[in-house]
Amino acid sequence: MRIGILGAGQLGRMLALDGYPLGQRFTLYDPSGKPSAGVGDVIPDQEGLRLKEFLAAVDCVTYEFEHLPYPMVEKIGRHRPVYPPAGALRVCQNRALEKQTFHDLGIPTAPFRIVNSAAELQNATAILGCPVVAKSVTEGYDGKGQAVLRRPEDAHKAWAQIGHSQLVVESFVKFRRELSIIAVRGIDGETVCYPMAENMHADGILRFSVAPAPDMDDATQKRAEEMIQLLLKELDYVGTLALELFETDKGLLANEMAPRVHNSGHWTQDGAVTSQFENHVRAITGLPLGNTDERCPTCMVNIIGETGDLKDLLKLPYARLHLYDKEPRPGRKLGHVNICADSYEELGWRAANVASLLPGSPEFHYSTR
Amino acid sequence: MRIGILGAGQLGRMLALDGYPLGQRFTLYDPSGKPSAGVGDVIPDQEGLRLKEFLAAVDCVTYEFEHLPYPMVEKIGRHRPVYPPAGALRVCQNRALEKQTFHDLGIPTAPFRIVNSAAELQNATAILGCPVVAKSVTEGYDGKGQAVLRRPEDAHKAWAQIGHSQLVVESFVKFRRELSIIAVRGIDGETVCYPMAENMHADGILRFSVAPAPDMDDATQKRAEEMIQLLLKELDYVGTLALELFETDKGLLANEMAPRVHNSGHWTQDGAVTSQFENHVRAITGLPLGNTDERCPTCMVNIIGETGDLKDLLKLPYARLHLYDKEPRPGRKLGHVNICADSYEELGWRAANVASLLPGSPEFHYSTR
Repeated sequence: MRIGILGAGQLGRMLALDGYPLGQRFTLYDPSGKPSAGVGDVIPDQEGLRLKEFLAAVDCVTYEFEHLPYPMVEKIGRHRPVYPPAGALRVCQNRALEKQTFHDLGIPTAPFRIVNSAAELQNATAILGCPVVAKSVTEGYDGKGQAVLRRPEDAHKAWAQIGHSQLVVESFVKFRRELSIIAVRGIDGETVCYPMAENMHADGILRFSVAPAPDMDDATQKRAEEMIQLLLKELDYVGTLALELFETDKGLLANEMAPRVHNSGHWTQDGAVTSQFENHVRAITGLPLGNTDERCPTCMVNIIGETGDLKDLLKLPYARLHLYDKEPRPGRKLGHVNICADSYEELGWRAANVASLLPGSPEFHYSTR
Repeated sequence: MRIGILGAGQLGRMLALDGYPLGQRFTLYDPSGKPSAGVGDVIPDQEGLRLKEFLAAVDCVTYEFEHLPYPMVEKIGRHRPVYPPAGALRVCQNRALEKQTFHDLGIPTAPFRIVNSAAELQNATAILGCPVVAKSVTEGYDGKGQAVLRRPEDAHKAWAQIGHSQLVVESFVKFRRELSIIAVRGIDGETVCYPMAENMHADGILRFSVAPAPDMDDATQKRAEEMIQLLLKELDYVGTLALELFETDKGLLANEMAPRVHNSGHWTQDGAVTSQFENHVRAITGLPLGNTDERCPTCMVNIIGETGDLKDLLKLPYARLHLYDKEPRPGRKLGHVNICADSYEELGWRAANVASLLPGSPEFHYSTR
């Protein structure tokens, strides 16, 4: 099948790399005009004049990032099937809709309010109890359009600073660690879930994912699967969905979701029987989904900003390198390394070793061990 | 690095798929004008007019098949490094040189003679003892340019039929099974070997490879490694080399070698820590070589002629599909399936199951179990 991908960054690249062995072909439509190199037929289109050409080249369309113009996706949907469906995209593009969906499905979250004015923000802050974080409902990405309020009186300043007409206000929650679950749903409703990953961030950027998350009981994994399956069904979802969670004393709380393959699922390339990328391609082309079992405890280490000399890393027998062929730039994701081991202890040593070889990487520590 | 590949079939495709994650870029030069689809920048050039364009697009050159015009490869070598070196290619293109190289290095083979006339063929046949097989020294590929002689008097007819000026004549050997070893040598001389595979053919086409070869003692593996290391050194080799062997009562006999990634090494994609494709790319770009340990007993099943409906196969949790995106045609290699298991017994059941789903596949049986 001829698959069209909106976006030509690393996620589109890795979808194509894992989709070719299934006999699929890829055309990447890149509104940014700055595609990642080399994989698939790329149609750069900064001026928006080549959409027709793109549509003629593909049988179905998917996307690698959710901050797409919704009218464009709707328009594409009138000509080709779009997976995940545009309705799911709409929910994931809007924090208010997203939180409301969690709420309506009985999926627990941190206490939150949706506010439409500075006065409502002040009121919600007083009710929730400080500190809170206020986020614009749209275009909030990587910490932009956010403010932390330490007193209800901060509301007017925060409202002005964020400058959006609707915000989500959330309580901070005390959590043990951050987790994520990735699931895939086929066109026929078949669903598979991966073991949860434990995710470690620094400066708002994911640095490490360990999967299966260590010290995880079956009941918690099962609870996460129930949550994401509620979402998949509600959104009539097709493809890979990622759900970020907090593990707290009161159980799992949903944080946010992403309607796509996800950085916290990159471990599946080397650590699971079938990768999240292959399973996304299987899902949107109507193929049976692949086995999601882990092969071994796996750690994904992101390469951020610069790669350094990778020769020492390539000498490590356990390090699997995945570069995105992108120009170095501070804070930019340039690649990742997957590490497998027979035990979490060994995995920890290996991850620490890999991190020590990457310029600017934080040290590796398990969150809870 | 910008890597040029001569040929754009499945081997070039899989080299590119495994080389992208190392940050390499690929341009495929295709003199046949009928490239495989989709991966890398393809330069079709049936008329031989675009070689300059190809050279300008690449930093080094490798090849995916050895039946290339040698003058073209020599010419390329004056502008860009070619790996494996043209000298190795020359030996592998000529059965007489190949056999002589084995002989000079003390690598045992079936008894053979090189003959330059029908009279010499008759004489050699009488000395070796019938039956023998006579093969043209060049362009012999997939059973073409060969004849079996049952009596020395067949020599004149066979000579006329093959129609070449030089032949290699070989005794048939009684062998227990066919094996192959794959090794990789870096620019700096670093060498790694994979565990040997056991190969099963039908109608002259490889159908199954099992690796590590079952019931293999360390001494035999070590002996094969010694043989291939002699060749790597003699040929000042850079890249992946495959050596086909017969296991006989008198030990291993070398049959032939291929200066490239090899069908009997496709199991390494899913069954080894580093694939033969990735290691070839590492070798020719001066990177450290990757670990060649097996992950588990693995069977590669070729998909020949037609794929059938692959949905049932994709439902099997242990089957890893690799399609080449080629048009079906009788006898054509269209893809392969890699199967992992925890034991050879389980692997045998799984391989038999996969074979039963592929139209026209022979049944799977171990050669010696």
